[in-house]
Amino acid sequence: MARTGRRPGATRTRDQILSAAREQFAELGFGGATIRGIARAAEVDPALVHHFFGSKEDVFVAAMRLPYNPATVIREILAQAGPDPAPSVLRGLLRIWDAPETQATMVGLIRSAVADDRTARVIRDFLSDMVVQQVSAELGVPPLRATAAASQLLGLIVLRYVLRIEPVASAGHEDIVREYSPALGALIGAAAPPTT
Amino acid sequence: MARTGRRPGATRTRDQILSAAREQFAELGFGGATIRGIARAAEVDPALVHHFFGSKEDVFVAAMRLPYNPATVIREILAQAGPDPAPSVLRGLLRIWDAPETQATMVGLIRSAVADDRTARVIRDFLSDMVVQQVSAELGVPPLRATAAASQLLGLIVLRYVLRIEPVASAGHEDIVREYSPALGALIGAAAPPTT
Repeated sequence: MARTGRRPGATRTRDQILSAAREQFAELGFGGATIRGIARAAEVDPALVHHFFGSKEDVFVAAMRLPYNPATVIREILAQAGPDPAPSVLRGLLRIWDAPETQATMVGLIRSAVADDRTARVIRDFLSDMVVQQVSAELGVPPLRATAAASQLLGLIVLRYVLRIEPVASAGHEDIVREYSPALGALIGAAAPPTT
Repeated sequence: MARTGRRPGATRTRDQILSAAREQFAELGFGGATIRGIARAAEVDPALVHHFFGSKEDVFVAAMRLPYNPATVIREILAQAGPDPAPSVLRGLLRIWDAPETQATMVGLIRSAVADDRTARVIRDFLSDMVVQQVSAELGVPPLRATAAASQLLGLIVLRYVLRIEPVASAGHEDIVREYSPALGALIGAAAPPTT
């Protein structure tokens, strides 16, 4: 992903693009917003937006101040996963979410998405357009099943990191992987069923 | 559950008990609070608390202004469910959550539990003490697996009713039952596995 420049001018331009992007994503959703429209709103050349950030997805990640690109992370995890992807997906999710430097930001994002409809709409759009469609395509499962898999993971995240409900809040990674894998495998393992 | 009286005195006493209960649950959590302690804080006889509300669980439901008792609903759904409980649980959850008169209250409760740590602690306690322990015992599955089942359902609720992410937000009940049942069945069907 393109890094920001150090020169004040570059920083100012970058910030103009990001605030324009936040407006566009909030007004039009992730699907409706375009690099061209963001560039127009920021009064810069679209090429500059590409130069600073790369894809629309990368602009979104920077605009929402995400510590990482969820879609990229999911792609990487799925790429490394074998024929029974559930345990790898769960290990990957736990590894990322248990990292203190990113956990606070992500918990904050979930809090605002749940509390505030404007944020919810942006997140909603990104999740359904990017994450659900992508996982659905890459695993060859129907979108509604990909959403069911997302439910399992979102529920785990909310119970463990936001509400901190026991016993899942302080359970070890491998205990969670063991108990959650059958459910997740029933959904995302469907493309290549685990040997029974 | 005992109904409140119509006389002003009774209403006043009932309200005293409820505000005392909210304080006690917030301070001590669901597990720590007692009918006796709530009665003492409300300066009434414990028998009066039982008379107005019934069990501590019922006091909690009234104090949190829940439209119904989640534990009772879960008990009823599980009691009606056959050897493969997942579809019945999902149908029951969708029937209750799609009822407009209760949906707003429940969505509001989830919003405040996620946003506010004080509410979160009370909900957290009630869920882990009552719901998880109970489901775990009634289905004969380990608590962590009951929590995994709760993750699936909480994720469905947050995606469909709070974030309203497609395609799950506007999917029909039977489509959701079809896509979610394998995952839920892998967890709560474990006690009496569905015929494969």
